[in-house]
Amino acid sequence: MIITFLTDFGLQDDFVGTCHGVIKRIAPDAHIIDITHGVAPQHVLQGALVLANTLPYMPEGVHLAVVDPGVGTDRKALALRGGDGRLYVGPDNGLLVPAAERLGGVVGAWELAEPAYRLHPVSHTFHGRDIFAPAAAHLAAGVDPAELGPRVDPAVLVRPNLPTPEVGAGVIRAHVLLCDRFGNVQLNLTAEHLAQVGIEAGAGVEIEIGLQRFYAVAARTFADVRPGDIVLYEDAYGNIAVALNAGNAAEMLGASAGDQVGISARPPGS
Amino acid sequence: MIITFLTDFGLQDDFVGTCHGVIKRIAPDAHIIDITHGVAPQHVLQGALVLANTLPYMPEGVHLAVVDPGVGTDRKALALRGGDGRLYVGPDNGLLVPAAERLGGVVGAWELAEPAYRLHPVSHTFHGRDIFAPAAAHLAAGVDPAELGPRVDPAVLVRPNLPTPEVGAGVIRAHVLLCDRFGNVQLNLTAEHLAQVGIEAGAGVEIEIGLQRFYAVAARTFADVRPGDIVLYEDAYGNIAVALNAGNAAEMLGASAGDQVGISARPPGS
Amino acid sequence: MIITFLTDFGLQDDFVGTCHGVIKRIAPDAHIIDITHGVAPQHVLQGALVLANTLPYMPEGVHLAVVDPGVGTDRKALALRGGDGRLYVGPDNGLLVPAAERLGGVVGAWELAEPAYRLHPVSHTFHGRDIFAPAAAHLAAGVDPAELGPRVDPAVLVRPNLPTPEVGAGVIRAHVLLCDRFGNVQLNLTAEHLAQVGIEAGAGVEIEIGLQRFYAVAARTFADVRPGDIVLYEDAYGNIAVALNAGNAAEMLGASAGDQVGISARPPGS
Repeated sequence: MIITFLTDFGLQDDFVGTCHGVIKRIAPDAHIIDITHGVAPQHVLQGALVLANTLPYMPEGVHLAVVDPGVGTDRKALALRGGDGRLYVGPDNGLLVPAAERLGGVVGAWELAEPAYRLHPVSHTFHGRDIFAPAAAHLAAGVDPAELGPRVDPAVLVRPNLPTPEVGAGVIRAHVLLCDRFGNVQLNLTAEHLAQVGIEAGAGVEIEIGLQRFYAVAARTFADVRPGDIVLYEDAYGNIAVALNAGNAAEMLGASAGDQVGISARPPGS
Repeated sequence: MIITFLTDFGLQDDFVGTCHGVIKRIAPDAHIIDITHGVAPQHVLQGALVLANTLPYMPEGVHLAVVDPGVGTDRKALALRGGDGRLYVGPDNGLLVPAAERLGGVVGAWELAEPAYRLHPVSHTFHGRDIFAPAAAHLAAGVDPAELGPRVDPAVLVRPNLPTPEVGAGVIRAHVLLCDRFGNVQLNLTAEHLAQVGIEAGAGVEIEIGLQRFYAVAARTFADVRPGDIVLYEDAYGNIAVALNAGNAAEMLGASAGDQVGISARPPGS
Repeated sequence: MIITFLTDFGLQDDFVGTCHGVIKRIAPDAHIIDITHGVAPQHVLQGALVLANTLPYMPEGVHLAVVDPGVGTDRKALALRGGDGRLYVGPDNGLLVPAAERLGGVVGAWELAEPAYRLHPVSHTFHGRDIFAPAAAHLAAGVDPAELGPRVDPAVLVRPNLPTPEVGAGVIRAHVLLCDRFGNVQLNLTAEHLAQVGIEAGAGVEIEIGLQRFYAVAARTFADVRPGDIVLYEDAYGNIAVALNAGNAAEMLGASAGDQVGISARPPGS
């Protein structure tokens, strides 16, 4: 059985390795795929977006995700069943729901309350090790999610507050979702939003971020423009992103997750 | 058979991946759990503490650890057998002993001297690849540790120089063991040390580090205090640690591994 | 079947994890060894050198490598068969050839053109996910490389532009290949080059980099010199490297990949 694993734990400390150990003690035959552990610390929204983007590429299995600023509070710990049979494990803070809704919706939810499926003593600060990883491992080993605790109404699950773009007359107000290792700046936009303001491949575009304005070109990919040009393109997950051919757009624009970005068509010849 | 693997190699270079390759050539059925490769370069003590903290969460198997500033000198390369049947592989510099002593003690020790279980030529600088990973793989494949070289008296193994806290009249002198990705500052203290100076959950505490003093609260977890408050709590491995709710305590305190920290109770109302 | 995997993707984002998911959906029994994902972004030459250095330590299998600044251009995507039976998958930019030539040469080459072995839609920017990982997985699952697309003449494959050292009268002009986590500075030199200018273990050496000159000692390993001494030694892959005993040579020398370095023998007593 496959367990996918996404966190904000980073790889400098032992948090990820310790959870692997916990899983393999409970479910020796489980195979773990580390989606990423590089989510910005405690950025639930980023974790939720990355999980939703990547799960369609993952084998079906148990999908364990922990980005958990509320550890130690009374936020619930959850197992979910998706419409396509996938199982999800993580905190009730909006991390899991967007992925599940992209893949058939949430058809069942349970609170991870049964002590028999936890490590003891349960620490106050590392529920990844003591609650979430054990639950994922038991599910992978065949335990029914209903064994893990009482049923929760899927309608009351916490959902993330996704920023929505505003499309106006010739201008779009968007937000930076994340910046990757290559400096690509992912926005909460799709090609349809660009089409609504008449921006198509080859068009000149003005990008406004903070107090600065940049000229860019809408293109199929960053290889379509000259080195040093800024390009607006549809990235591999269907989001509109900003890149710098042979450079780092996030650095050049001074962009980081959460920043507001204005996009407008540039008149021909300007 | 499980091989757990802990080093200071980092993940930027190929060192870890190369050792994985070496292991899988010798023991194709071994399963490797990477505990962490983020130990600070050549910090044997940190590696020893992380290994001792995490092994109770790992399946029993061969426990390979390499933090080895003495590579190329005459420090011994070791295989150890623990009282609970676990096997350990690594340099004789104190890295392995605290973990083994926490889990049943060292009941056998051998020097990795037998050429048949090394890669040749043995480099002067990468014994992880040429001596330690091959030994761990052969053990995982069923070789008896006595085949690897001559027996060593467990009493003469190098032990790490663990800093011990000084508990005085109302004040504790402790040391920073490590700072994690979230900025939590782990001290060489347990809840018992705090109890000895009368610090209990809810108490006000003064933390002295370098020339600075900070007010903090002893609490069950960082979720128990207000955002921006400094909290002294028992972490997931049973050590006392300092955290900043919704912030990075290591940055705020300017703390790093090895620093001395003073902890004292704050009079009520101060 | 083993798939080794080397990229410049880093581990902060989901790129590596997503490719793992893609591979395991196609070839559930494939075992993936991550050689490294820390190649400097888009540094094809560094990727090629690391692949050639490390593959002799890897089990035979499918060797997937992606460092691909030309993604989205018309550079070919390749599968190669090596003289020893290994298979290689990656872009036609010089990344794969040095490794294959070290291990028996390239005896067959095919372009990854067959749509049935890609993910659809094929993105313009993430061929690792949509073309290379699926091809590697299908090969690992037993597909013949000739099924993946038309044959390519191995003679026309792109080869990397490897810098060659100039050995003159008592001085060598070399280049920095890469700097590792420990600050070791790997040069494009072997012990034979040093012998040509009369530098042997124990000799004094002058290292010139940029406008600075440093005194160093040729030695078997950095443990042979005093703390703080700079040492020129043969590293674990047979390259000559510069290290600082108990320090970071790359920082001290201000060295980074591609820098030119002069090495000359120092007269005895100077």
